[in-house]
Parts: sequence; structure tokens; C-alpha cells
Amino acid sequence: MRNVCTAAPQLAGLEPYDPKYLPAEAFLSANENPHDVEQDIRAEIMREVKRVPLNRYPDPLANDLRDMIAEANGLDRDQVLVGNGGDELLFNLALAWGGPGRTFLNLPPTFSVYDANARLTNTTVVNVPRREDFSIDEEAVLARLDEGDIDFLIVTSPNNPTGELANEEFILRVLDATDALVVVDEAYFEFSRQTMRPYLAQHKNLAILRTFSKAFSLAGVRMGYLLADAEVVREFVKVRQPYSVDAVSQAIARVVYQNRAKFEPGIRTIIEERTRVIEGLRMIPGVKPFPSDANYVLFHVENAAQLWEMLYGRGILVRDFSRAPHLKDCLRVSIGSPEENDAFLKALRDAVMGKCDLKVPSA
Amino acid sequence: MRNVCTAAPQLAGLEPYDPKYLPAEAFLSANENPHDVEQDIRAEIMREVKRVPLNRYPDPLANDLRDMIAEANGLDRDQVLVGNGGDELLFNLALAWGGPGRTFLNLPPTFSVYDANARLTNTTVVNVPRREDFSIDEEAVLARLDEGDIDFLIVTSPNNPTGELANEEFILRVLDATDALVVVDEAYFEFSRQTMRPYLAQHKNLAILRTFSKAFSLAGVRMGYLLADAEVVREFVKVRQPYSVDAVSQAIARVVYQNRAKFEPGIRTIIEERTRVIEGLRMIPGVKPFPSDANYVLFHVENAAQLWEMLYGRGILVRDFSRAPHLKDCLRVSIGSPEENDAFLKALRDAVMGKCDLKVPSA
Repeated sequence: MRNVCTAAPQLAGLEPYDPKYLPAEAFLSANENPHDVEQDIRAEIMREVKRVPLNRYPDPLANDLRDMIAEANGLDRDQVLVGNGGDELLFNLALAWGGPGRTFLNLPPTFSVYDANARLTNTTVVNVPRREDFSIDEEAVLARLDEGDIDFLIVTSPNNPTGELANEEFILRVLDATDALVVVDEAYFEFSRQTMRPYLAQHKNLAILRTFSKAFSLAGVRMGYLLADAEVVREFVKVRQPYSVDAVSQAIARVVYQNRAKFEPGIRTIIEERTRVIEGLRMIPGVKPFPSDANYVLFHVENAAQLWEMLYGRGILVRDFSRAPHLKDCLRVSIGSPEENDAFLKALRDAVMGKCDLKVPSA
Repeated sequence: MRNVCTAAPQLAGLEPYDPKYLPAEAFLSANENPHDVEQDIRAEIMREVKRVPLNRYPDPLANDLRDMIAEANGLDRDQVLVGNGGDELLFNLALAWGGPGRTFLNLPPTFSVYDANARLTNTTVVNVPRREDFSIDEEAVLARLDEGDIDFLIVTSPNNPTGELANEEFILRVLDATDALVVVDEAYFEFSRQTMRPYLAQHKNLAILRTFSKAFSLAGVRMGYLLADAEVVREFVKVRQPYSVDAVSQAIARVVYQNRAKFEPGIRTIIEERTRVIEGLRMIPGVKPFPSDANYVLFHVENAAQLWEMLYGRGILVRDFSRAPHLKDCLRVSIGSPEENDAFLKALRDAVMGKCDLKVPSA
């Protein structure tokens, strides 16, 4: 029997992305919305799904959905592109603006998929690490852009997993300082209420990425979108898979987008709970939460990996970043339902107290 | 306002893939199954979709579905991978086995996406064109493989858009002649009943691609799968987007795969209609159909582009390949319902007769 030749060299030693999505009672690891789509919207979804011809290819560009998103954002259809989750659009970005001989400016610690996509597409990665408090080292970024070799960068706002917004003034300075494509990843924008959208018309090199996976409870359906100059969108279209967004997902997303106002109370609750979780974390000795404008909170605690195990032992799944670069002893907890947040805070308090060998009455 | 730097050089001059999917009365251009999933299966699908938590990320690897496919094919889970349509797996192939400095052997005319994927990933393409009758130039392929620089090739069987099967003996010779990854694209296997699956155990460099889009009426849902050695699958996993196959599509595909026996009568009808369409085409003066083991027929006819227009004017959408390399004056018609096939044959006969200036009574 013949062997098979090795895969491309950039794959050597690469581990597949592992979302570490384990069975649990409280899923607080993936920044999902704790509430599924509510019943009346769900009923409308089922009516629409029933009408989808499954045997026919989907509309490649999902134009009905594009039109809705364009209208809501005061844009034209050709300034909007939908993708199979924001993930697909991030990969399209690396394909279209990256590649051999091209350079991506990354601001770690941030969403690890950016770096992985660059490596898969043989794009050079230049890192300008964030400061100790995870704020962007703005002058260092601008100085690096001045060298003139950067083809694209991603500014995540709020940043994942650290939680803080990028400074709007800074993004505007970046847009004026470079003709690199500047993608502002606003995956969590519904929890921060801050967006660069008003600046699209004045900045051809600005693109904004959003998703239905978080605020709109559609992580399972995979739907993201890009807002950008029509010429930028056209390049994305060249590299995308023509039928990547299936017909059923298109139908579901249309219903959800039409009903998006109904998600507002849930979003407000998450924002309120975020404040409560941060306060609760602050009250646990040795736990240092970072500020957050998203639906998750990163916190620093000694022996984080062990604490992760203890939490998981209590049925609570959070995300362990303790071995990730720049994130030593950090865990990230997604904001769940009030009950899940209570359970998390209690379990963490117990675990930390237990570790400290303090005797606390079990509540 | 700053401009935006150009996208990667391999995109210059590239036109986005255009499926040319236009409104029509009879869609005979995309090799879809003319029949949607039948009502009782559809009802089961709706019950399953109702149960999917939309707010939670899907199982990244769709392990339930993988297990079903593995079992049906006498394989283990780690020898199966599902993708967002066969398209995603084809792109994964180019990412994992292609890339800068690597070489893909293509057998045109064939599915144009292979070549496009190679270009997007900066993979060198070596073409060994088929013979005039579209059979593979087997000795030329083996001679080219002997040079030792090919990293992967795709043997499409039946070939799209030309319709004929690859010779099994030839594929076995290829597998013994090279350690390149040999992907046999069996997207239309349910219409040909021929598969290389029995040879997987003996050939580590063999991979088989299949889809739910054709025989199983799920073009709108996007579901494809790969059967291969576990080590090959592992490399595909490294390059895929972790959540590319959404939770609803997974649920739909599970129901359809469990009920796949129920698609058999429909498949048999398509096979019978294929024979009838080929015979009908043969009876039209100047029309030369090529043999087909798939659910479509390629045919040669003078002034094909004009005839395409005339057919489209009668509400019948077929696929125009008349300007594609190696396919001058060729059109491809998908096998539709008996009524659609009748309408197509009648409209083509009328159009050809009109062009020939023969007076025929309108039937």
C-alpha cells in the first residue's frame, strides 16, 4: 500500500481548533445567549422553514436578508455580505486580504481564530501586544502601521476574551493612517451599543463584522454579516463558497432579524447581569475581573486551571485561558441566566475559599 | 479619505463564481433532484428541527451524523468528515493538500470549482485534458504522476459536466503509482451505483467525496461528506471552520440519511428518465448527447448559446457551457420530472428545427 504524502507544511504541528465544548449543566464557555429564541418567533421560524424548498440550491448571496440588513443600517445591498457565521467572513478576509507575501497586524490577546486563519493562508502575522490591562497599545500600533507593509488588521470591539471596547478616536486615527483594510469585529456590539457604522461612508478601508450568534440566539444556525464598501464586499464575494449560507439558515435569520426588537429585553438583562457578575467576582478574595462591554467577563485568579476543574466538577463550564499567551491564570465566564450566574458565583466562591483552606459554612 | 489597498494578487481579474441560477419554470441547470423531500420525511424533519437549541453552537464535527455515515459504509467515525456541502470539503482539500509550492493535477473539462479553489489557495495547477470523447487520457495521467511532483488530484466519477464514469482499474493504477492524495468525487454516485469505497482499506491515499445535494434532495441544506483514512481526515479537520455545519442542517441530514431508502424509487425514476432524455436528444437532428451515469446529460449542438436563449425564453433553464474551455457548443440538462423532461425535449426540438428552417407541425 502506498502512503499518502504529507499535507501542506503550515499544518505540521497544528492542532485542530478545539472549542472545548463539554457536557455541562451551565454552559458559560461560548458566549452564547442563555435564552433560546422565544416561542412566538420560533413558531414563525417553523412556518418559514416549512416553505423552504430543500431540493433547490439557496440564493447564493441571500439577497432578501442582505436587503433587510442594508436597510436597517442605511446602506445598499452591495455594501452588505452574509456569511456562514462570522467565522466564514473572517476566513474570507484572510483569503482575500492575506496570503503569501501579505501581512496581518494582530493585537493579542484577542480572538485566536484571526491568527489561525492567517497561518492557514500563509499570511505573515505581526503582533502588537496589548498592555497589561489589555488596552490597545495605540501608539505602537500607529508606529507599526507607519512602516507601510500591513495589508489588514482586526480591531475587536469589545475585545474577546478580554471584554473592553476599542477607543473610537483611535480607530479613526488608524483609518486615516493606513490604506490597510481595517476590520472592526463588532460580534458583541449589541451588548456595548457602540459601533463604527456611522463612519463607513467616510472610510473606504473600514469594514464591520457582526453576528447573529450572540445577542440574537442563533449560534446554532451560523449567520454573520459584513458591512463595508461595495468594492471590498466584491473581493469577499470572489473568495467565498457560493452556497455557504444554506436556505434554511437564511429563512431563520430573516425571521429573527425582522423580530430583533423583541430580543432587547433579554439583552438588557444580560447587561444588568454582567454588572452583577463583575461585582460578585470582585467580592471573592483573589479574583480580579476585568471590565467588560460584552456578554462575558474575563477574570484573573491564581491556580485558574485547577479552579476550572473544580467548577466543571460542579457542572459549570467556563472557558480556560490560563495556558494561552498573555492570559496566564485567566478564565472567561459568559453571562448566563440569573440562576446560572448565581450558581457560577457560588461555585467559584466555594472553590476559591476551599483552595485558601478557609473554613466556610456551605451555604 | 484613504483608499483601501488591493486584495491579494490572485484575485485580480477573477470573476466571482456565477451559478447562473435564473428564474425559470423548469430548473434543469443545477443537477438538483426535481422532487423535494417527501411529506412524511418532511414532517419528521420539522419535529427534529423544533428540538434543536438555536442558541447553542452546533456539535463541531456532527458526530451523530458521522456515526450514521460511518456505520452505513463499514467505517469508523474518524474516517468520516461532514462539510457545509461538498463545496466546503473541496475547499478544505485545496487548503490542506494545496498551497504555495504544491501542485494539483486536474482533468478538464470537469467541475470548475476545483481549479478555482486551487487558484484561491495559490496552488499550482497541472492540466491533463480529457480526450475528445471526454474519457480520461489515462496513460498521460500516469506519465505525469511519474514526475513525482503532484500533491493531489481529483477524479470525478461520474464526471461533471460530461457524465461518464472513471475506469475503476485506472483509479487503482493511479493509487499504486503515486502517494498524492487521490480524491474520487462521487457526488453523483447514487445515479451510477459505482463507488471506490471497497478500496479505502487498502489505499491510504484514497479519499471519497459524496453529497446530500443531489440524490437526497438537500441542495438547499448544504451537506457533503468525505470518506478517507483517519490521518487524512485529521488534516482536513485542521483547516475546516469549526462550526461550519449548522445544528439545523445536522438535524435535517440525520433524518434524511435514516430515511435514505425512501429516496430509491425517485432515484430509479431519474435513471430511467436519463435513458429517455438521451434517446430523445439523439432523435433531434444535429444534437449529440454524451453518455451519462449521473442525473444530467451533456450534449453538443451547433449555435448552443443561441439555443440556450431560446430554451430560456420558453421557461427552461439549462446550463450553458458553450464558452467554457473544451466544451464549445455544449449544453448540460439536468434530469427533471418526466413533465419537465418532455417540455425540455419539445422546446429543444422546436428551437433546433426553427434554426434549421424546417417546417414542423407544432406538436
